[in-house]
Parts: sequence; C-alpha cells; structure tokens
Amino acid sequence: MSLITVERKILEKNDEIANINREKFRFKGMFTLNLVSSPGSGKTCLIEQTIKLLKEKMNIAVIEGDVQTNIDAQRIDALGVPVVQIVTNGACHLDAMLVRDAFQKLNDIDINILFIENVGNLVCPAAYDLGEEMKVVIISTTEGDDKPLKYPAIFRNSEVLVINKIDLLPHVNCDVDTIIKNAHSINSGLKVFEVSCTSMEGINEWCEFLLYEVKSQ
Amino acid sequence: MSLITVERKILEKNDEIANINREKFRFKGMFTLNLVSSPGSGKTCLIEQTIKLLKEKMNIAVIEGDVQTNIDAQRIDALGVPVVQIVTNGACHLDAMLVRDAFQKLNDIDINILFIENVGNLVCPAAYDLGEEMKVVIISTTEGDDKPLKYPAIFRNSEVLVINKIDLLPHVNCDVDTIIKNAHSINSGLKVFEVSCTSMEGINEWCEFLLYEVKSQ
Repeated sequence: MSLITVERKILEKNDEIANINREKFRFKGMFTLNLVSSPGSGKTCLIEQTIKLLKEKMNIAVIEGDVQTNIDAQRIDALGVPVVQIVTNGACHLDAMLVRDAFQKLNDIDINILFIENVGNLVCPAAYDLGEEMKVVIISTTEGDDKPLKYPAIFRNSEVLVINKIDLLPHVNCDVDTIIKNAHSINSGLKVFEVSCTSMEGINEWCEFLLYEVKSQ
Repeated sequence: MSLITVERKILEKNDEIANINREKFRFKGMFTLNLVSSPGSGKTCLIEQTIKLLKEKMNIAVIEGDVQTNIDAQRIDALGVPVVQIVTNGACHLDAMLVRDAFQKLNDIDINILFIENVGNLVCPAAYDLGEEMKVVIISTTEGDDKPLKYPAIFRNSEVLVINKIDLLPHVNCDVDTIIKNAHSINSGLKVFEVSCTSMEGINEWCEFLLYEVKSQ
C-alpha cells in the first residue's frame, strides 16, 4: 500500500467524521471557525481580543491545538472562557477525530461561537476539514507579502483572511495591498480583515462580522 | 499497513539517501546547512545577506524549497549565485531524494557552502535528514518567545538557532533571553546568533562562524 493510498483513506475517514462534527455543531446552533496560520502570526492574540470584546454578548468556547504545551489554553482560561487543549505530540495539524474527542468536554455548554485554533503550520492543516463552518487564514505583516503565492492551498480553502500586526507596517518590508492582490489571485472570494491585536485597529470590524455570522446561524 | 509503518519505512529510506548525500557533500569539501523556520521568519533574507558578505571569499550555492513558486530562487539568482529551486507542489518539507536530485544541477560546480532552504514549516522538516552537516532553526522576534517550547523537535534536532528581526524588538512583545532560555531547556548545546537582516546587526558574527566551519571541513 502506498503512502498516497493510506493518506487518501485517512482523508476520507477524516471527512466523514468532519461532516458528523459539522452536523452536531450546527444542531447546537454554534458558529465554528478553524483558525490556521504560521507559528506566531497571532491566532491566540486574535481569539483573546475577540473574547474581550464579545464575551458579554455571547458564549464563546475554544479548542486549542498545539504540538506541545498548554500555554495557549492557559491564556484563554485566564479570560474565563471554556477551553480544551489538544496536544498533538508532534503531529503537524488537527484532524476531525481529535476535535470530536475534545468537543466532548464542551458538549453540555451553551456555545454561540467555537474557535478551533489549529497547530501553527501554513501547509498541512489546509487538507483537513474539522467540521468547521469556516476556515480563517491569518498572516502577519512581518511574514512578507508573497505568502499567499507560496502557500496557496490554505488561501484557496479559507473563506476569510485576517492580516494581523498592521501596527508593525512602518517597520517591515510588506505591502498590504500586495498581500490582498496575491490572496485574491488564489481565491477571489476571500473576505479580508486588516487588524492589529496590539493597537486594536480593525478588531471591531472583525467582531461585527462574527456577530453577523452568529445571528445568521 | 498502518500509516505509522509506511512513515517509518519512508523515514528509513530517507535516512539512507541522506547518508549518501552527506558522504557526497563531504567528499566535495562542502559545508552544507539545512535552514528551517516558519514561513516569513527570514530564511531567504539571511541567505541573501550572507551571500553579500561572503561571496568574494568563497563559493556559495543554494537549494531553495517551496510549496509553490520560484520567487526565492529568483532572489538568489539576482545575486549571481548558483541556485536550484525545488517546488514540492503541496508537500510540507524537503526530503533527501529531492535534495539528491536537485544537487545534480550543482554537481560540477566548486562549492564551499551549500545552503538548503527548507519549506517554511516549523514542524514537519524536523524529522527529515537531508544529508546536511548542520540544521539551523530560525525564528523571528515577531513570533513570540514561547516557540521553542511549542515546537520542540526542530530545536532538539538543530545545532544552531538564529534569532532574526532583533531590530523589531522595541515594537513587539518578545524577550530574547526568554527565547534562549526556552531553547536551551530543549537543547542545551544550541549555538545562538541574534541578528537583523535589516540593520545587519549580528550578521558579521554569523558569517565568521560560517567561515570557521568551512575552514574546519
């Protein structure tokens, strides 16, 4: 049996469970997002700032995915929001089975938005449906404006692009219009938010979008 | 056959070819480095600045690994240095076979240092020996100081840590001493360079290290 055959079977099995997850999440009336980025692009920061702005208006929960440590879950827990940490022990992405098992700990809670923070990796998570309603790809301005062209799969498979760390634009060699042009050349339907989790620029627009999506569920 | 069995066989085959690569590279008297980091940490910038400082003193060649595009090879080519681009078409890391095949195009050139720039990914390249003399892990200050704890394998398997973008330290929430402490808790033998490819701080020390290693071959 070749690796390609084994991988295809794994992806088929993953997609089956992802569809069951999605049905369950929809039945609970939850809006579920799968956040994907390189390490250090600011996924956890974005979730933290979103929680601070939205937690009085709705019930938020988080599933954290990391290769090692529960540092991110501790950060979310400190904000008083239900969180489950998945430690993949070396694996480079979350899969639908891991999310199904982690969600058991959140099953009895009333949730409007579930954030699933994937392992920091711009390549492998692109292939794995977790049962989310929407994939969100995040890149930071410090990573340069060519990333959509160099890592096209995750930009093709996402509905939303969040460009983070726009407060650092005066200090880095990055043009936001070029990021957007490159991203739209891969996926013309990508909705784009330009934010800074430090200066809070753009975070309100992002939160309004989430509120709208939650109300549309 | 389970995925684990297939993966083990692939890694065994990879390691065989990596050892053949290494013998060949040593026989040619080349010092070969495998550069690993997240997307946008500055691997290509580091190679570019190293070339500018060292190309009059020694012969440098580069193998570029990317999921898509030959943008990085174009940047190296512009500096007049021999370069081969590997496009992995979605694969998340380089392997020894890809490097063996790419090196055929450099085989007849006199080379002192060969840089192999891996796909931007802090997880998967950690498991794959390419036949290099040394793995170098690069992180930038914008990624935060917890990355060695969250992605330990590549820090365990590298000999050198380059902390890039130290010019951005006044603008980001990152403590270099914490990066180093966390990295040394994983691998106490890691040699550390703190650099900025923008201000050129620390690049001389990095180049002196390379010169020393080349002379020791």
